[in-house]
Amino acid sequence: MDYNAAALAMHEKYHGKLAVESLFSVKDRDALSTAYTPGVAEPCRQIAKNPEDVYRYTLKSRTVAVVTNGTAVLGLGNIGPEAGLPVMEGKCVLFKEFGGVDAFPICLNATTKEEVVAAVKAIAPTFGGINLEDIRSPECFEIEAELERDLDIPVFHDDQHGTAIIVLAGVLNALKVVGKDIRRIRVVQNGPGAAGTAIIKMLRTAGVEDIVAVDEHGILYPGRPAGLAGHKASLAQTTNPRHLTGGLAEAVKGADLFIGTSVGGALTAEMAASMAPDAIVFAMANPNPEILPEDAKAAGVRVVGTGRSDFPNQINNVLAFPGIFKGALAVRARDINDQMKLAAASALAGLIPDEELNEENILPKAFDPRVAQAVADAVAKAARESGVARL
Amino acid sequence: MDYNAAALAMHEKYHGKLAVESLFSVKDRDALSTAYTPGVAEPCRQIAKNPEDVYRYTLKSRTVAVVTNGTAVLGLGNIGPEAGLPVMEGKCVLFKEFGGVDAFPICLNATTKEEVVAAVKAIAPTFGGINLEDIRSPECFEIEAELERDLDIPVFHDDQHGTAIIVLAGVLNALKVVGKDIRRIRVVQNGPGAAGTAIIKMLRTAGVEDIVAVDEHGILYPGRPAGLAGHKASLAQTTNPRHLTGGLAEAVKGADLFIGTSVGGALTAEMAASMAPDAIVFAMANPNPEILPEDAKAAGVRVVGTGRSDFPNQINNVLAFPGIFKGALAVRARDINDQMKLAAASALAGLIPDEELNEENILPKAFDPRVAQAVADAVAKAARESGVARL
Repeated sequence: MDYNAAALAMHEKYHGKLAVESLFSVKDRDALSTAYTPGVAEPCRQIAKNPEDVYRYTLKSRTVAVVTNGTAVLGLGNIGPEAGLPVMEGKCVLFKEFGGVDAFPICLNATTKEEVVAAVKAIAPTFGGINLEDIRSPECFEIEAELERDLDIPVFHDDQHGTAIIVLAGVLNALKVVGKDIRRIRVVQNGPGAAGTAIIKMLRTAGVEDIVAVDEHGILYPGRPAGLAGHKASLAQTTNPRHLTGGLAEAVKGADLFIGTSVGGALTAEMAASMAPDAIVFAMANPNPEILPEDAKAAGVRVVGTGRSDFPNQINNVLAFPGIFKGALAVRARDINDQMKLAAASALAGLIPDEELNEENILPKAFDPRVAQAVADAVAKAARESGVARL
Repeated sequence: MDYNAAALAMHEKYHGKLAVESLFSVKDRDALSTAYTPGVAEPCRQIAKNPEDVYRYTLKSRTVAVVTNGTAVLGLGNIGPEAGLPVMEGKCVLFKEFGGVDAFPICLNATTKEEVVAAVKAIAPTFGGINLEDIRSPECFEIEAELERDLDIPVFHDDQHGTAIIVLAGVLNALKVVGKDIRRIRVVQNGPGAAGTAIIKMLRTAGVEDIVAVDEHGILYPGRPAGLAGHKASLAQTTNPRHLTGGLAEAVKGADLFIGTSVGGALTAEMAASMAPDAIVFAMANPNPEILPEDAKAAGVRVVGTGRSDFPNQINNVLAFPGIFKGALAVRARDINDQMKLAAASALAGLIPDEELNEENILPKAFDPRVAQAVADAVAKAARESGVARL
């Protein structure tokens, strides 16, 4: 199937793919007076008296903004807010179809960190949560941190945390398959941008102690001659406990887990062969992975995941974000914290019973109808237990 | 019917009244690859290449933002963005139900003019038009002017222009009923806030020459001792050609048309009786009009309109905004200019054929199914003829 042609035809046919619909038919004067003046004044008065009632009487309780400024759209780069709109509409479609969450795309004409933060703060009253999307690093880190600090609704940069949650779910199950302990494995993360950095943090939160981050200039370590821009300086401080130097080849030697968020072909067969026995490789570059599954397998790797649907073990963000927001909205969570992210990863991993677990089946499928509710339940429970739920 | 109770129950039942729905069912992997990655990259690329294609492949072509900062919501005043959300959701419902226009509420946490302007400019890429709503005057004038100047999509403050268009439609037909020429009538506008000021401008554009504006301190004229804040100074320059002074009683003496956007009871029976023969009164204060229709009639007024649905001649904004945006979006208009507004008013007036026109029937009813399309067609035609249409 030619997805490009199909997508163009479909997007032209519907003019996008998202509609705003009324839940209440205004068919006569009484209905008009209930949905609009004079009746509508009453919920307004109630909310003015008790601000929390905005969750009771409006769409805020069930609606998420999918926000981008178009600076890092898919693999297309900085194509701007208008060109990013089809992706954001698509994300909203997935929110609704997979999680039953109403979501609306907000594409911002805003390039600086300050402009994005100001715009999101301004529109926050309408929404119960903010899903940041396709905002380039390093701005995305500070944008998210500032919004999390200042808004009382959850803010979640899916490119970072959604990916990290699914990677962790896959890692948990892959480690079961190969029989290794997460606290003892050696991990290499290649391409520490938005997703890679979040993956490193998530794995550390889950108990991984030995992580080496590698970018296009080689292994990250303090004082590296090639330099360490922005967030990489702090990554260099907190990773690489064995003080390795060199490039990816040096980093992967003896590693138990390779996680690529970099470029197609970055992991050679020779590098893969140098990893520890029963190694795991998540090669997530799109559309061409860091190494093809067949080549990794031939080099002795035991479990391989990619971003693609035509190979086993697809690492697909749609497994996480619909359920995460569904759960966060259900308990009116203030944040999406580490406990909730860990709970989401465990819930995803737990959907594969031990007897079905194997090298080619470490993650549930995107269309598994249990996924969103299982994630939502786990996230809601963790929100309550960690004290960020308001219901 | 107790509209307050009905509205509370309905808003609680649905959690508001607006939903975001997918137009394309993502039921299998092919659908997922068409609505989202990898297929979605193709419309993105097309838009990046040719920015106008955002109208071809996204919801921008058919979607309006209903924007407020909650500073002048209904008659409730400055209740803030959250408490204004039920009204904005309601407005979006009416856009869809009456005009088939997708509309989404954006309630801004923004009080200054600068903050509102910055936020609306930031979110503009998603939308084909901006409907400003319930923003207090005088800020609303400058906010609208600046957005109109800087955005290439239509910006329309409905409290101003929607009201003005329907008033003009009513005036055109009422003048037919009483047999007077619009260029020769004397008009009094009581309460020149957002709506009143727009009504004055609209009537002047339609040919009225003699308008006197009156506020709580009396007739507006240059150098008035009570002072003239903000936009009233310029109103004073352009109105009151006979240099009247005094209060409302002095202003209405001999007037052919009274238009109230002020407070209940402002026009006494005595004042009404002092108007010219065959006078027209639009008493639009809500819920209590400036004068009750029966009292105005008893004082000799011939045609009376109010904002209420339980009297004849309701001046109801729902007659205009759905069709106006429907028409503007249809031809991808850059603005909603005076020609389009005049065309909308004429189209509304024209829906009552001469033989059905009488003192109690000067405007079409809100549920007349012809209204939105008639307005849209007239607006689209005027947009083309005045050079602001891009299609």
